[in-house]
Amino acid sequence: MSASSSLSAGVLIIGNEILSGRTHDLNLPFLGKRLHQLGITIAEARIIPDDEAIIAQHVLEFHQQYTYVFTTGGIGPTHDDITSQSVAKAFQRPLTSNPAAVALLQKRCGSATLNDHQLKMALVPEGAQLINNPVTGAPGFRIENVFVFAGVPKIMQAMFDSILPQLQTGKPFVTMSVQCYLGEGKLATGLNEIQNLNPEVDIGSYPFWGVDRHGSCLVVRAQDKAAVKQVHQQIIQLIESFGATPFDIEDSELT
Amino acid sequence: MSASSSLSAGVLIIGNEILSGRTHDLNLPFLGKRLHQLGITIAEARIIPDDEAIIAQHVLEFHQQYTYVFTTGGIGPTHDDITSQSVAKAFQRPLTSNPAAVALLQKRCGSATLNDHQLKMALVPEGAQLINNPVTGAPGFRIENVFVFAGVPKIMQAMFDSILPQLQTGKPFVTMSVQCYLGEGKLATGLNEIQNLNPEVDIGSYPFWGVDRHGSCLVVRAQDKAAVKQVHQQIIQLIESFGATPFDIEDSELT
Repeated sequence: MSASSSLSAGVLIIGNEILSGRTHDLNLPFLGKRLHQLGITIAEARIIPDDEAIIAQHVLEFHQQYTYVFTTGGIGPTHDDITSQSVAKAFQRPLTSNPAAVALLQKRCGSATLNDHQLKMALVPEGAQLINNPVTGAPGFRIENVFVFAGVPKIMQAMFDSILPQLQTGKPFVTMSVQCYLGEGKLATGLNEIQNLNPEVDIGSYPFWGVDRHGSCLVVRAQDKAAVKQVHQQIIQLIESFGATPFDIEDSELT
Repeated sequence: MSASSSLSAGVLIIGNEILSGRTHDLNLPFLGKRLHQLGITIAEARIIPDDEAIIAQHVLEFHQQYTYVFTTGGIGPTHDDITSQSVAKAFQRPLTSNPAAVALLQKRCGSATLNDHQLKMALVPEGAQLINNPVTGAPGFRIENVFVFAGVPKIMQAMFDSILPQLQTGKPFVTMSVQCYLGEGKLATGLNEIQNLNPEVDIGSYPFWGVDRHGSCLVVRAQDKAAVKQVHQQIIQLIESFGATPFDIEDSELT
């Protein structure tokens, strides 16, 4: 598949609770959709445990490989929140108390006296810029191309919105889809031909099972809207050539 | 955090549709829970695109790093299903038509004549063992420590059940949790002390926001049931020491 933007992103989802199946991650689907609209391709996402050496290694690897890196999780006050120190380690910078972050936390707590664990949320790698958190006050931070977000979806989403002006964006990806009650095996030859003739467009085929019959959902995706429309039309014709009726034709630039 | 089993797993979730946010992955939460019960720790999960070189590289890396590797997605009949050829490439083995797989597909289709794309689902790396698919017939396969599953959750789950007897298992992880209306900042010092005294147990702290107040959910996890119970009790006492009431005490070996 070749429908990738030259602007790439790596996503690091940090947390034992995701790997043990206890918590369902909601941040990757959010970031996938939003970055898509901004013409940025998520090249890869990794879900990793709360382990300083492991986090530091993956942050460094993604920092070198992708235009942007987004991390979620592990910036709270408790012992298992070790993302900030791990990112500092990745960049070999000291972890220092950020006065603006302290002020934000004091304001939020309504108290000038914060305990050590609350103050921990103001520790960021030297030279990092804070990321605003309108939900609970405790900020995230950016260091070079790495954006460090909270794991709680509502906070993560607000942080993403607040860093939007900092992102270089590309031509938005356009997605169109169509479904039919034909098995993938029947469509495969025709789809393959269409894909070969249109290498700049990404055609995905996903089977589904209804109550009494099964079918396929075809998804066309690229940054070139005209190409997506043309390929979508070719797939509709392919479906009709088998005497089947295409349905749920989805024509959206937002999904 | 040190509550990891000596039996490890790497999970590769393959598919552009997951990275673009179009499809929410349900396979990692399933595998996380099930492997947890079997005493196997998921060390890492990666979500990667439908790209032969990328898939092959990650399969090889995980194959060398972890006890088991589970892949999901990309074993259907269409042009975007390239997992089998990518795994063959990772192991430098030819991709060959498996007669038992052809027979299964013929039986399922009720026809001796399968088209090239249907026959594609019988192609596996030389020497691979088939994995039964009671849902739609088209098999997955195992090669060395790598299990190649379908992406559709219902099929993936059935395939996982069918390979269970092949897995070496460890002492099941036990999880106990408790919630309270105390902020993480308040609990952090006490939790840190409990964690330091019990390094073999993994204590996770997760904030939540109710309608009018916020709180924390504390999760204790380890393979040693007695240690989990003891730490859980210590956390309950910590909560009560602040005059708060612990609630939703969860005591389950299955979550």
